[in-house]
Amino acid sequence: MSILIKNVLLNDQRTDILIEGNKITSVSNNIKTEGIDTIIDGSNKAAFPGLVNGHTHAAMTFFRGYGDDLPLEEWLNTKIWPNERNLTDEIVYWGTKLACLEMIKTGTTTFNDMYFRFKESARATDEMGIRGVFPQLMFDGLDPVQAKKVQSRISAKDFEGNYSSRIMFSIAPHAIYTVSGGSYKWAMDFAKEHNIIVHTHLAETQIEHQNAVKNFGMSPVRYLNSLGVLRPNLVIAHCLWLDKDEIQMLADNDVKVIHNPNSNLKLASGHKFLYNEMNDKGICIGLGTDGCSSSNNLDMIEAMKMMSLLQKGWRLDPTALPAEETIKVATENGAKALNINSGKIEVGKLADIFLVNINTPAFTPFNNNTASNLVYAANGNNVDTVICDGKVIMENRKVCGEEEILQKANELVEKLIKQ
Amino acid sequence: MSILIKNVLLNDQRTDILIEGNKITSVSNNIKTEGIDTIIDGSNKAAFPGLVNGHTHAAMTFFRGYGDDLPLEEWLNTKIWPNERNLTDEIVYWGTKLACLEMIKTGTTTFNDMYFRFKESARATDEMGIRGVFPQLMFDGLDPVQAKKVQSRISAKDFEGNYSSRIMFSIAPHAIYTVSGGSYKWAMDFAKEHNIIVHTHLAETQIEHQNAVKNFGMSPVRYLNSLGVLRPNLVIAHCLWLDKDEIQMLADNDVKVIHNPNSNLKLASGHKFLYNEMNDKGICIGLGTDGCSSSNNLDMIEAMKMMSLLQKGWRLDPTALPAEETIKVATENGAKALNINSGKIEVGKLADIFLVNINTPAFTPFNNNTASNLVYAANGNNVDTVICDGKVIMENRKVCGEEEILQKANELVEKLIKQ
Repeated sequence: MSILIKNVLLNDQRTDILIEGNKITSVSNNIKTEGIDTIIDGSNKAAFPGLVNGHTHAAMTFFRGYGDDLPLEEWLNTKIWPNERNLTDEIVYWGTKLACLEMIKTGTTTFNDMYFRFKESARATDEMGIRGVFPQLMFDGLDPVQAKKVQSRISAKDFEGNYSSRIMFSIAPHAIYTVSGGSYKWAMDFAKEHNIIVHTHLAETQIEHQNAVKNFGMSPVRYLNSLGVLRPNLVIAHCLWLDKDEIQMLADNDVKVIHNPNSNLKLASGHKFLYNEMNDKGICIGLGTDGCSSSNNLDMIEAMKMMSLLQKGWRLDPTALPAEETIKVATENGAKALNINSGKIEVGKLADIFLVNINTPAFTPFNNNTASNLVYAANGNNVDTVICDGKVIMENRKVCGEEEILQKANELVEKLIKQ
Repeated sequence: MSILIKNVLLNDQRTDILIEGNKITSVSNNIKTEGIDTIIDGSNKAAFPGLVNGHTHAAMTFFRGYGDDLPLEEWLNTKIWPNERNLTDEIVYWGTKLACLEMIKTGTTTFNDMYFRFKESARATDEMGIRGVFPQLMFDGLDPVQAKKVQSRISAKDFEGNYSSRIMFSIAPHAIYTVSGGSYKWAMDFAKEHNIIVHTHLAETQIEHQNAVKNFGMSPVRYLNSLGVLRPNLVIAHCLWLDKDEIQMLADNDVKVIHNPNSNLKLASGHKFLYNEMNDKGICIGLGTDGCSSSNNLDMIEAMKMMSLLQKGWRLDPTALPAEETIKVATENGAKALNINSGKIEVGKLADIFLVNINTPAFTPFNNNTASNLVYAANGNNVDTVICDGKVIMENRKVCGEEEILQKANELVEKLIKQ
């Protein structure tokens, strides 16, 4: 199968993009149309690499707008955790479908998930046509007996199934306050053996930082460093509360960091993400939305604006994190963090691409500024067409099965949220 | 003319809304459909009061994405001011049309403008069908001779014309670093005589604050207080750099304040807007986008999310500025600041309403949380229908004349931006 996008804006220049199989095979002018299966007229469109959501909890779409504006402890204890006891395979499956629908409609082609019942999420995502990384999730309550039980239940056999190459797996010790050091080490060994990434939350809140100092005698990053689990395949969500020496530890070990600006603000975790300081040390920084329970959407274009503006605002520096660099964070860096050959529109890369309609106010007037307009003026709803793994999965904002997904979510939410 | 919105969600309850002439005349269940001119099926929709953009420079849509990521001085001196010399009536007219198009498509029905050639902006807005407040703009370079000239050119006769009641006028001394104290006093007298608002920038940047102390021996708010121009009809954009005593001065004089979070972040003016402190003193606080040269869009729904999340983030308080209160800021408070009888969906108010399509991911699942979903999950592109002054000006996201406006803007931008 082949797709040719004709005469589209790429980095403010007109070009054609040829996709054969699941790869980009040519980016040049005047590619011949003969023998092409699908031709897309790009004349009113600009092309960008598919966005990579580096940290989310997809099925938590069901908690969108539920328990807002509460202190973190009260929110978890009275809203999220009691209702998560009602989770079923069906809810996780349809919650992930709803998440995929929203991600496709806002230009995301890959996401790094962390939630329960990962096989249901993997199945839903495979059906929706995008890429996802799905975890065996670890919680042991820092209890050695429980830790052994959790470890014994985890098996690479659970990764087996009739999945496409778009579906990948990970292991995810949840956080240092829910998972013992022993389990972190075990997870790192497991990941090494199976060549997968390790996905965790770290240094998200000031309280986590204070408790780590109290309980482990050191800050969160130092603690993981002392365990020897800072490795290139470790993907850390948040990393808000850390100092210069900890940044150096992350850099020395090529650890990947995912920033989640909307969630950090909404849950009041903090706003001074040290992008410049980490980037200057060569740390690969990606972008995430976090789950809909905290963000409250999965719109990576909105998240790009938030990330860039927040850097400028708290630093009092209008030159901080320009638009093009922000796009790189949300595409190329995300793909690198997840070890996927995408994130750029160039020959040999996986064909993960979205097109925006530039015949809209957000992209008008045209002034050689589509990157700026994408980050600062547009939002996810400007996305018109999405291609993932060489297949068109959205055209003119229409996604297959949309009505059924919305209907199912509205039906099933009553089974989940009971208090 | 009458419009009946049937079975729509309002504050999470189903109701009908009747509009007769330019007013809301009934909000109740089972309003009879006989004799109604236009019936809108609200069953997949939620209704909100039209948004009020409290501070913008509409025609600066032409500068969208032009000169991003630069220090403020360099941006003004090399990008904005040199090109503003090329402004023509035609550019201001079409720039304002483009702004109105974008505002309508994102749910804004009223805006408080500040730009050159206000008659062109007023004419464009009147044609587009929304409300606007247009200023006689004052710059005198703090020069007494120039001040007299500027004052002598301003006349209430310029407010006359064949405008609808949606078009209002103001006087706008630009800022304390461009306009003399004498001109501020003159503007306040002029406003009193003609019963209009006074619109100005104040306390936007730290440099402005430092220079005020240097040049006037006091901070910006104290300076206006010393001039005796802090009055209830004064609408101040920004108010970022101020202290407790200055907040009390604003409160004592019932001055109106407009917060512009996106602009304040992007231009790196600051991020710690003192919402709680001002609100606790009873100050009426509205919301604005500022111009597209700095924000870079006019999406008030995006601005609501930014405002609410920023309050939570910098205060480390997740309970700060909840969703419903944010909507009040962007509607009721804005209308009050501009002295317009709108901002609420209730009997007797002007019929300025927008409807969102709730059959979309941002509003799914439905869980009695449409206010949260509007502020935290949606963006302007979720707006489906807009009614202003009792007329439907957008339905199914279609606005009359859209193609021509986009085309004209792309043609004319080359006449404006030459360097």
